[in-house]
Amino acid sequence: MGYCYLNGRFLSEEESRISCLDRGFLYGDGLFETLPAYRGVPFLLDRHFRRLEKSCEALRLIPPNEKELKDIVRKLLEMNGIECGYIRVTLTRGKHLGDLSLTVPDSPTILVVAREYAGYPERYYLDGIRVGMSNIRRNPDSPLSRLKTLNYLESLMARSEATEREAEEVLLLNTKGKVAEASTANIFWACGDKVYTPSEECGVLPGIVRGWVLEKAGERGLETEVGEFPLSHLEKAEEIFLTNSLMGIMPVRQFRGRDLTAECPGPITRMLMEIYNKELSSLGR
Amino acid sequence: MGYCYLNGRFLSEEESRISCLDRGFLYGDGLFETLPAYRGVPFLLDRHFRRLEKSCEALRLIPPNEKELKDIVRKLLEMNGIECGYIRVTLTRGKHLGDLSLTVPDSPTILVVAREYAGYPERYYLDGIRVGMSNIRRNPDSPLSRLKTLNYLESLMARSEATEREAEEVLLLNTKGKVAEASTANIFWACGDKVYTPSEECGVLPGIVRGWVLEKAGERGLETEVGEFPLSHLEKAEEIFLTNSLMGIMPVRQFRGRDLTAECPGPITRMLMEIYNKELSSLGR
Repeated sequence: MGYCYLNGRFLSEEESRISCLDRGFLYGDGLFETLPAYRGVPFLLDRHFRRLEKSCEALRLIPPNEKELKDIVRKLLEMNGIECGYIRVTLTRGKHLGDLSLTVPDSPTILVVAREYAGYPERYYLDGIRVGMSNIRRNPDSPLSRLKTLNYLESLMARSEATEREAEEVLLLNTKGKVAEASTANIFWACGDKVYTPSEECGVLPGIVRGWVLEKAGERGLETEVGEFPLSHLEKAEEIFLTNSLMGIMPVRQFRGRDLTAECPGPITRMLMEIYNKELSSLGR
Repeated sequence: MGYCYLNGRFLSEEESRISCLDRGFLYGDGLFETLPAYRGVPFLLDRHFRRLEKSCEALRLIPPNEKELKDIVRKLLEMNGIECGYIRVTLTRGKHLGDLSLTVPDSPTILVVAREYAGYPERYYLDGIRVGMSNIRRNPDSPLSRLKTLNYLESLMARSEATEREAEEVLLLNTKGKVAEASTANIFWACGDKVYTPSEECGVLPGIVRGWVLEKAGERGLETEVGEFPLSHLEKAEEIFLTNSLMGIMPVRQFRGRDLTAECPGPITRMLMEIYNKELSSLGR
């Protein structure tokens, strides 16, 4: 294990400790961001910082200084000699002072971890993954569904259902029965030349790669629709793919135990994967 | 600050640290229990242990040894010289090993904290508190709504709405629009001789005092109904009270900005408060 950054100091990960009274630990009272790095350069860091900043507002947390955080990330990647890896930034309200209220903290806790990471297996991108259905539903009536908080256990529980479904991921509907997202990824699908994804109002995380895909699809002249969709709409899809910051764009070959009829990855998924990989592999050049 | 117990050792709270790679910190992957102590004796510890044990099963965590945990709790109360206080037991999956799955941990983290605690203001029990409505809704379609996990931020966010409503607590409906619970307490109400509370299926925590109240009410010949209720049912209540392990039984005098028409605490609430206080104050005699 390499170095991490914790509250102003670079320490070995092994040694780094937080107070057991940290509100991140006691209540999940904090946020995190995860992003990949390639050739030692973080990918889409600006966008991650913007989301962190926005989420801080919702939770009454103070975001770290932008320049300082970026310097820390770059320094950690260098110290740990990371070529291909990931970064996780964790921000909490700091030490619990006996009061449950969400007051602006005097001393927030900030932890930055950077590690080598080989990524998802290559064959997933070549052949696509299988997605089953989760029994858990996302809650659009909770602000937490739209924030990347330390309350991540529901996602982990949903994720653990994938194995039982003989799948790599699961889809969660929301409590209204509409399509929401995968346990740790956003979902997109294509019919004809149009690309669909659930809106934030469905109770989904505004994923960074999700935002990136919507932008790139628009630039390439693809029509996109962000809204509320029944499961039957998704079931008519010719292509399905998932996105998150560590998987990038992941083609889906099987949904609810049935193979998609068209080729996988389909032409739209392939095009977006190519643009994504091109941007990623241009880093550090 | 006094001593706490962390992974086999009694340490000063100030010094006690956990790895910043603990899954409790990174993902809220853990459980907790909070209970009061009176004259140095923990209240309803057996029931808390049973719930912890049951929740461990749902999360694939190993519960601590019952006798050991009880000894730790008693020893901490003694070491810290606590007469009237609270205990918090926190259990997590331990250090993150790079895999998101909910595997049974080799080295779970266990933290026990015991502190002096004066309790809620006396006047709350004499006059009752005010309860407003939360904008957040509980999710009966998530297993988390029925487990006391470290994913507690939604409750804290709901709780922070109370101040805006000029109230001490807020009521959350569930995503189906039925009555669920307060931000950090269960809700009960009475009409005639009957006592009502939402069922677990509504997406509420099976509170320890909630279970205790249902038992005692039954023993006293009060009819109880545990089920799914619309808000209109609660609005016809003659008495309302909240329960949690630290507040015990809390009368409500005002709901949604309107005073309850009958006296507060009403006769049923008062009777249950008396039994509760009698049990609590018999501890350590």
